[in-house]
Amino acid sequence: MREQDPLVIFTPSGKRGRFAKGTPVLQAARSLGVDLDSVCGGRGICSKCQITPSYGDFPKHGVHVAEGALSAWNAVEQRYDDKRGLKPGRRLGCQAQVMGDVVIDVPPESQVHKQVIRKRADTRAITLDPATRLLFLEVEKPDMHEPSGDFERLSKALSAQWGVEGLTAGLSFLSKLQPALRKGGWKVTLAVHKDHTTAAPRAIEIWPGLHEDGLYGLAIDLGSTTIAAHLTDLRSGAVTASSGLMNPQIRFGEDLMSRVSYVMMNPGGDVEMTRAVREALSDLAKALAQEAGIAPELIVEAVLVCNPVMHHLMLGIDPVELGQAPFALATSSSLSLPASDLDFTGINPRARVYILPCIAGHVGADAAAVALSEAPEKSEDLVLVIDVGTNAEILLGNTSRVLACSSPTGPAFEGAQISSGQRAAPGAIERVEIDPETKEPSFKVIGCDLWSSDAGFAQAVGAGSITGICGSGIIEAVAEMRMAGILDPSGLIGSAEQVGTPRCIDEGRTHAYVLHDGTADGGPLISVTQGDIRAIQLAKSALYAGGRLLMDEMGVDHVDRVVLAGAFGAHISAKHAMVLGMIPDVPLDKVTSAGNAAGTGARIALCNIQARHEIEENVRRITKIETALAPAFQTHFVNANAIPHATDPFPNLRAVAPLPAVSYNTGGGDGGGRGGRRRRRG
Amino acid sequence: MREQDPLVIFTPSGKRGRFAKGTPVLQAARSLGVDLDSVCGGRGICSKCQITPSYGDFPKHGVHVAEGALSAWNAVEQRYDDKRGLKPGRRLGCQAQVMGDVVIDVPPESQVHKQVIRKRADTRAITLDPATRLLFLEVEKPDMHEPSGDFERLSKALSAQWGVEGLTAGLSFLSKLQPALRKGGWKVTLAVHKDHTTAAPRAIEIWPGLHEDGLYGLAIDLGSTTIAAHLTDLRSGAVTASSGLMNPQIRFGEDLMSRVSYVMMNPGGDVEMTRAVREALSDLAKALAQEAGIAPELIVEAVLVCNPVMHHLMLGIDPVELGQAPFALATSSSLSLPASDLDFTGINPRARVYILPCIAGHVGADAAAVALSEAPEKSEDLVLVIDVGTNAEILLGNTSRVLACSSPTGPAFEGAQISSGQRAAPGAIERVEIDPETKEPSFKVIGCDLWSSDAGFAQAVGAGSITGICGSGIIEAVAEMRMAGILDPSGLIGSAEQVGTPRCIDEGRTHAYVLHDGTADGGPLISVTQGDIRAIQLAKSALYAGGRLLMDEMGVDHVDRVVLAGAFGAHISAKHAMVLGMIPDVPLDKVTSAGNAAGTGARIALCNIQARHEIEENVRRITKIETALAPAFQTHFVNANAIPHATDPFPNLRAVAPLPAVSYNTGGGDGGGRGGRRRRRG
Repeated sequence: MREQDPLVIFTPSGKRGRFAKGTPVLQAARSLGVDLDSVCGGRGICSKCQITPSYGDFPKHGVHVAEGALSAWNAVEQRYDDKRGLKPGRRLGCQAQVMGDVVIDVPPESQVHKQVIRKRADTRAITLDPATRLLFLEVEKPDMHEPSGDFERLSKALSAQWGVEGLTAGLSFLSKLQPALRKGGWKVTLAVHKDHTTAAPRAIEIWPGLHEDGLYGLAIDLGSTTIAAHLTDLRSGAVTASSGLMNPQIRFGEDLMSRVSYVMMNPGGDVEMTRAVREALSDLAKALAQEAGIAPELIVEAVLVCNPVMHHLMLGIDPVELGQAPFALATSSSLSLPASDLDFTGINPRARVYILPCIAGHVGADAAAVALSEAPEKSEDLVLVIDVGTNAEILLGNTSRVLACSSPTGPAFEGAQISSGQRAAPGAIERVEIDPETKEPSFKVIGCDLWSSDAGFAQAVGAGSITGICGSGIIEAVAEMRMAGILDPSGLIGSAEQVGTPRCIDEGRTHAYVLHDGTADGGPLISVTQGDIRAIQLAKSALYAGGRLLMDEMGVDHVDRVVLAGAFGAHISAKHAMVLGMIPDVPLDKVTSAGNAAGTGARIALCNIQARHEIEENVRRITKIETALAPAFQTHFVNANAIPHATDPFPNLRAVAPLPAVSYNTGGGDGGGRGGRRRRRG
Repeated sequence: MREQDPLVIFTPSGKRGRFAKGTPVLQAARSLGVDLDSVCGGRGICSKCQITPSYGDFPKHGVHVAEGALSAWNAVEQRYDDKRGLKPGRRLGCQAQVMGDVVIDVPPESQVHKQVIRKRADTRAITLDPATRLLFLEVEKPDMHEPSGDFERLSKALSAQWGVEGLTAGLSFLSKLQPALRKGGWKVTLAVHKDHTTAAPRAIEIWPGLHEDGLYGLAIDLGSTTIAAHLTDLRSGAVTASSGLMNPQIRFGEDLMSRVSYVMMNPGGDVEMTRAVREALSDLAKALAQEAGIAPELIVEAVLVCNPVMHHLMLGIDPVELGQAPFALATSSSLSLPASDLDFTGINPRARVYILPCIAGHVGADAAAVALSEAPEKSEDLVLVIDVGTNAEILLGNTSRVLACSSPTGPAFEGAQISSGQRAAPGAIERVEIDPETKEPSFKVIGCDLWSSDAGFAQAVGAGSITGICGSGIIEAVAEMRMAGILDPSGLIGSAEQVGTPRCIDEGRTHAYVLHDGTADGGPLISVTQGDIRAIQLAKSALYAGGRLLMDEMGVDHVDRVVLAGAFGAHISAKHAMVLGMIPDVPLDKVTSAGNAAGTGARIALCNIQARHEIEENVRRITKIETALAPAFQTHFVNANAIPHATDPFPNLRAVAPLPAVSYNTGGGDGGGRGGRRRRRG
C-alpha cells in the first residue's frame, strides 16, 4: 500500500485503505476486514459479493470518485448478468478491480454478518454468524502416484481455500463424497459446521458444483404442551416458515410432574415418551420443509430449548431424578449432537442439534433461552423476567447480578383446573371486562373480533359455540371481578345480595359469577366459581412468591420493570396481571411482553454462535435459588394469597385501578376450598 | 525430601528417592514416575498396587532394609487379605507407608505398562498402554443450592482425582449415568477412552462401585476370505480367546474385484455386502464373548485392519472407485468410530473402533498393520515383507526408507483357478515331496499327520477322502515338479516319455502330473495340469515383479532378508517359494514367516496408543509405488514367468536346490495357455 495507490472506502462500515491498481474489490474488502460475503471464494459464480460503487464528490470522505474508478465489466460479470441478471449499479466484488479512488457500498444482502434479530436494539443487535456455512471448493483430482483419499484432498482444499483446518466427517458423509466430487468435476459446495467450541469443523453436506438452493436451520421451543419451530434461512436470518403442534406426551400427563409419575409407575414409560416427542419433532420438521418447499437435506442445523423434564425425555434419559429433591439433572451443560442421535428425521441426518444449557433441575434450557433473548445481565435497571407456564421460570437481575428460580404455578394459568377452563382455541373466552356499576360482563372469544356487547356478536359466534375460558380469559375475569367489587381482597365471591347482581349465584357454601349462560342454546353455563378463584390464587401466589424470593436475595423491595415472556405472557394485560398480584407493583408502562422469548432465544443461538458462548457463560454466573426448600417462600406465598396482596401496597396499581375495599367474609370460614368447614348462617 | 528421610528404591526400574516417614508407597511410586497400577486411586479396594518389599542387605543399592521399613499391616490390608487373599510377602502400595530405607519390587501384574507383545524383541517391545482405562471415582452428591448435572460432577471428579480433563459422553452413556451413581453410592468405576489424538476423553461405560470384571478389546483382521479376531484383556495384554469365520461376502464374489463388479452390476449391492460383513463382525464378537464367558459390554474397544475394498464395504462406502484407475480411496486416514456407527453389536455399543490408515488405493490398512508389526522402518538390513493373499501387499525398506506396493496375484495361491484346487480344509493336500529319481510323489493332507508314503496313511485318511490341493500344496507341488525335472524352466510339463514316469499323462495338447488317483475309491484324480502351472506362473510373476519394482525404486538388485506374512505365508516353505521364484534370491535362513502379521499389527494398535501414532506417521512417509501403470512392471513380469526366473541367477537357491536344465518345448508352441496355437507333432 503506497501513498499514490487508490483509496478505497467501504460503506456502511467506513473502513478504508489504499490498494494497488487492479486489486479486486473482494480482496480489498477482505484485507480490511469488511464484511463482504462470498461462497465461491472469488470465482465469479456465486454472486454473493455484489457491491455498489458510488461516483462523484464525497466531501465527507474527502474523495472524488471518477468514472473509471473500477475496471470495466469483464466477461464473467457479463455472463453472470446475462444468466441471472445483476441489479442496476451492482458489480461482482471478486471481478471489479480498483483503478482509482472509490466509495463502495456493501448492500445488506452481501454482508455475511447481517443484523437479523433486533430483539435487543437497546443493548445490542444480533448479527448473522451461524455455525454452518456453505463453502465452494476446487479439489485436487486423485493421483495414483501420490495416493491420498478424496476426503483428505477435500480437507486440504478447505484449508488452502478457506483457512478451515482439521475437517472431520462421519461415515454417512464419506459415503456421499466420491459421487459428489466426480459429478461436480472436482468442484463442490460443502456445508461445514464449526461452532463456538474447540470441536473440529465437521462436514455436514456436499453438493456437486455450486450449491445455490440455500441453507436452513430450525429453532425449536419444545414446551410441555406445545412444540413450536421456526425454519430459518441461515444465509439471511429470515424466518421462512413457522409451525407448531401439540406435544404428544400430553397423553402421558398434562403437566411435567404427571409425566415423571407416569415413568415411575410404568417402567419403560420414558422410552415411549421419548419416541413420541422425537416423532413429533420429525413431523414438525417435515411440515416446515414442505411448507417452505425445500428439501429436508437443506436443514443442516437445529437449536432446541426446553424445560429439564422435556430435555431428559427428548434425550432419552429417565427423568425420575427431576421429580424429587435434589432435582439432579443428568447433565446441565449445553449439548451438540448429530440429528441421527435423536432419531430426528425430516432434516439432514448429519445436521447438528444444539441444546442450550439448563440452569438447574427446575430451570431449564428454555429459561436459558429467555435469558439469552431478554439479557437481564445487560439491563441497567433491575428487571424481573417471568416466563409464565405450568412451571414459571423467573429471572431477576441487572448488569451486576442475575438470579433465577422456578415456581410451581400449576396449570391454572393455562385454563386447567378451572371449572369452565379450556385450552386457547376457538370458542374460548379470552378477554373479559366487567362494568363496575352494573356488574355486567362483556367478553371476546377466540375466533371472533367482536365483543359480546357488540351488535351482531351472537350471529358472528354462533349459538352454543362459546365453550369455556382460556388462561388469559380467567385472569382477566378474576381481575375484573376484583375491580368490580364482585370479589373481595381475600378472594371470596360475594352473594347476589352482597354484590347486587343475579350473576352471583349460590353454589352451596360458596358463590359463582356467571360470565355466560349458553344453556338455552345447548351450550354450557360458563361461570367463575369460588374453586376457580382458589386455583388462580394458588398459582399467582406461587408466581409472586418466586419473584419475591429473588428480590429478597437481591436485597430489594421493588423492581424497575417486568417482562412477561411465553406465549401466555403475550396475551395477558399488564393491568390485569397486576390486579391479580401475579407480578410486583411497577408503573404499568414498565410491564412489557416479550412474546415467545424462549423461541427467540433459540433463534438467536441458531443465528449467532457467539450467543451460544455467551449464554453458556451467563448460565454459569446466574445464581440459582431453590424455591422448594426456602423457608421465606411459604411466608411470601401466604401473603400473596390476597388479591392483589395482603401486605405489599401496590401504589402504582392503586393509581390506575379501582380495588374496592369490600369484604364478603361472613365470619363462618374462609369461603371454602382451604379446609375450613363453612357454617352456613341464617 | 530431606537427607535424613528414608531412601526408597523401586525394582525393576531402579528408580529411587527419599520420602518423609509415613509416605504411602503408591504416592512415592507416583512421584518418581514408577509404573505402579491403581484403579481405585489409593483407596485400598482395587488391590492393583500390590508390591513386594525386600528385607536385608542390598550392597548393589547401598542400603540395609530393616524389619520395620514399612508400616505394619493396617485394617484395610487385613480386610482385603481376609476377603480376597494377598500373596505372601505382598503389601498394598496405597496402604503400606515408608518408615525406613526400603527396596520395593513392583511385580509385573502391578505394572500398568507391562510388556505384552514381544514381536519385535530385536527393535523394541510393545508395552501395554491401551486407549481405554478403568478409573474409580468418588463423585460429589447433587446439591440443590449449587445445581449442576451429575455428568458435570462426574467430569469434575475425573479431573480432580485422575487429572483427566474435558470428559465427553454420548446420550446412551448419559442415560446410564444416574442409576449407576446412585446404586454405587456416588462411587463408580468409569471406562474412559483417550487415544493418541487431541480428541477429548470419552466416557464409554460406568459401573456402580469398584468394577473388577476386567476390560477387553478386539483386534480384528478383516480379510477378503476370512475374518479373524482376538479378544484381548486390556489390563494384561493377554489374548483371552481367538476365533475366525468366513467372510460372508464370498457369496458376492471370491476376490475383491469380483465384489466391486457385483456392486457395479447390482446397484445397492454394496449395501447388502456392508450388512453381511457387519453382521459377521457382530457374530464373531458374540462368539468370542461367549467363549471367554464375559459380558459383551466389557468389550470396550476394537481395532480393525483390512484391505481397501473391505475397508470401504465395511464402512458403507461404495467401493467402485477402487475398481478403476486412479483407485481413489474415499478416505485414507485412520478412523475412530463408535461401534454403533458400524451396527457393531456383541460389544459395548459405546466401544470405539479404531481403523488403521490405508497406504493407498490398493494397499490397505492391513498392509499398514503389517508395517506396524514388522517395522521395516526400524530394520538395519533391507527387508522385503510380502503379505501373500489374493492381492499381495509388498513392503521394502530399512531405516532410511520404506516403499510399498500391491500386486494383483489373483487367487491361485489360495487354491482357486487350480484344477484340483480347494481351500485349506481337511482333505486338502498341503505338503508335497517328489523323489527326483522315481518321480513318485509323497504328500500330506490337512487333518492327518502322516505322509502318504508312511505306513497306515490310507487307513488314517480314509478311502476317497483326499479332495484336492490347497494353496501351499500347489506351490510345493509345482516347486517339487521343477526340482524333479518334471517341469522345465519355461513351465512346461514333460510327457511320460520325456520325464520317464507314467504319472505324466496326456491331456490333449499338454500334459498333467498325477499326484493322487482316488478314482478307484470314488475319489477324484488329483493332478497338476499345464493350466495350473500357468495360473501359478501368472501369480508368482506378479508377486516377484512387484518386489522387483520396489527394488528398482530403491536402486538395489538384492535384499537382505524376506518376511512372508499372512496366514498363507506361515504354511509355505522358504525353499519352495524360492524355487518357484515367488521371492528374490536370499540365503534360505533369511526367509522368515511373520504369521498373521496384519492381525499382530491390529493387536499392537489395540494395546498401545503410541503405536497408532507411529503407524499414522509411517504411512505418511512410506513411498507408494503403483504397479498397474509402471512400464518396468511388465518387463519384470515377463522375465519372472520362468521358474524360478529367466534372467536373475538365484545363486543362493542353486546352492541348495537342484534345478535341472530340462526343456520340454517341442517347438510347436509354448505349451498352451498363453495364446499360441499348438500344432501337434507326430
